[in-house]
Amino acid sequence: MRTKQEILAAIAPDLEKIEKTLSQNFASYVPFINEVSRHILFAGGKRLRPLLMVLSARLCGEPTSPRTYRLSVLFEYLHAATLLHDDVVDGAQFRRGRKAAHHLWGNQAVILVGDFLYSRAIRIAVEEGNMDVLDVISETTTLMSEGEVLQLINLDNVELTEESYFEVIFRKTAALMAAACEVGAIHARGNSWERPALKAFGTYLGYAFQITDDLLDYLGAKDETGKDIGTDFKEGKVTLPYIIAMERANPADREELIALIKEKEAATPENFRRACELLEKYDAFDATRQKAREFVDKACEELARFDHSPTRELLTDIAQYVLTRKS
Amino acid sequence: MRTKQEILAAIAPDLEKIEKTLSQNFASYVPFINEVSRHILFAGGKRLRPLLMVLSARLCGEPTSPRTYRLSVLFEYLHAATLLHDDVVDGAQFRRGRKAAHHLWGNQAVILVGDFLYSRAIRIAVEEGNMDVLDVISETTTLMSEGEVLQLINLDNVELTEESYFEVIFRKTAALMAAACEVGAIHARGNSWERPALKAFGTYLGYAFQITDDLLDYLGAKDETGKDIGTDFKEGKVTLPYIIAMERANPADREELIALIKEKEAATPENFRRACELLEKYDAFDATRQKAREFVDKACEELARFDHSPTRELLTDIAQYVLTRKS
Repeated sequence: MRTKQEILAAIAPDLEKIEKTLSQNFASYVPFINEVSRHILFAGGKRLRPLLMVLSARLCGEPTSPRTYRLSVLFEYLHAATLLHDDVVDGAQFRRGRKAAHHLWGNQAVILVGDFLYSRAIRIAVEEGNMDVLDVISETTTLMSEGEVLQLINLDNVELTEESYFEVIFRKTAALMAAACEVGAIHARGNSWERPALKAFGTYLGYAFQITDDLLDYLGAKDETGKDIGTDFKEGKVTLPYIIAMERANPADREELIALIKEKEAATPENFRRACELLEKYDAFDATRQKAREFVDKACEELARFDHSPTRELLTDIAQYVLTRKS
Repeated sequence: MRTKQEILAAIAPDLEKIEKTLSQNFASYVPFINEVSRHILFAGGKRLRPLLMVLSARLCGEPTSPRTYRLSVLFEYLHAATLLHDDVVDGAQFRRGRKAAHHLWGNQAVILVGDFLYSRAIRIAVEEGNMDVLDVISETTTLMSEGEVLQLINLDNVELTEESYFEVIFRKTAALMAAACEVGAIHARGNSWERPALKAFGTYLGYAFQITDDLLDYLGAKDETGKDIGTDFKEGKVTLPYIIAMERANPADREELIALIKEKEAATPENFRRACELLEKYDAFDATRQKAREFVDKACEELARFDHSPTRELLTDIAQYVLTRKS
């Protein structure tokens, strides 16, 4: 398996083309929209979703062209639109190490620029001129908005089950990665099994990615993730580590876990530290890591259906990297 | 020209089918989304945009079918999505005579349900399977988000020109009505001049509609419009009546008009009454009405290119009605 540096070197040429395409295409007739878009689009995003699309297309034998990169950036626009609306929703202070957009321009502007980026994404899909692509995208955005609503409804629901948790993360994260991979296959005119295989790969990878993200909210370091730590917890957002601990805890510890996450208004670093202690006590972090690993394994099984190739190896390494990432 | 009651009787069969299609199609897998959607979708909306699409299709000779009505409701979804995001933005207390959605469920939920309705609209366009329709819709939603942003930027800009005002209302209102009419023509496989003629009709009608709306914000009565009166003014939203008065006013009255609209935080009914007095002094309301009339005339000229038919008469009457509407 390659190191992070080796993976970055291998994807550098594609990333460069994605960056270039992004900076050429987001422009609006309204300068203010460009300012806000630039803030969210060029704040050190990993470009994982466009990259997944490009690599999926290549895996199906497509010689990547400017059209491929052009199509790929729609996934970054969709992702950015979600981040903007999500920031308003969560009231996050930081995003990718910078002040969240709504703290700079207010909720109102941020919502509307999110709408603009979303429209622009659909526009790119329309320009591709392939109804299958539009079918996938419109299905995906519906799922994504449902996922965000579900997440909001589930706030403070300390009885959230693993099943409900997976339902949410499928919609809010896995669906878009699945779409990126599936659209890559469609763009490359992939055959009857390639398209569903890449869709499944993206789905499993998305689960693993979100689970790791939720783990990083407990265990990450702000200077590496660029996000505040413990924000999910402070907002009463129940994620897998907490759910697992709740399943395993004795009645007294369950009581304490519930009290800790419900104390939102007066949440102190001490609350969060104590919660981490309890999650550690029940091996919730290890169990969560294990769950993420299972999804990565499933993702790699889908890749194994394809012939051996440098692109297959690279996608496999990216999937493995998701587990060890620190940001 | 028909009375309002006669117009309502003539459109009743179409409206009934539009309502039925709407109530059958908005359902989400998430009950909460349905609750919020229902609040905004079934709060006495006039269904003007779906109706314009259906009548435009019929004008081009399409025998309207369930597919026509199904396609038409996407315009109500888009409109509702905009209303939801707009309510957050404007902080409106009332919408269509009911409490604005964000006062019932909070900004966060309302943004996300707006996203859902928007996705659902795109989904319907995809199901129509016509790339021209998707082209129009994606272009339109981009314009609409730009229009909303421009409107936000222009808040408190007491020097707003008529030109900038028309730029905003083209994007935020006229573009969607134009799209509804143009999609009607596309759906009906209208010929080379029908499609642009109906697009132009919708654009002019949209201008007239928004100008009248802005006039009603000064002169309407809450029990008829279902909206608070003077809200635009209190928020510092500069619209045509104000712009015209500013163009015509002597220096002293200009000063006073500026002071009145800038006193947002401490806006009193007295402020608003005094502003109305000044606008009246410079015949700004009459001049605004006159502008709306000019757009309706242009809209009707486009209709005049079509052969005489009951549908043409009905569209003409609807266009005329826009001028006299009280809500």
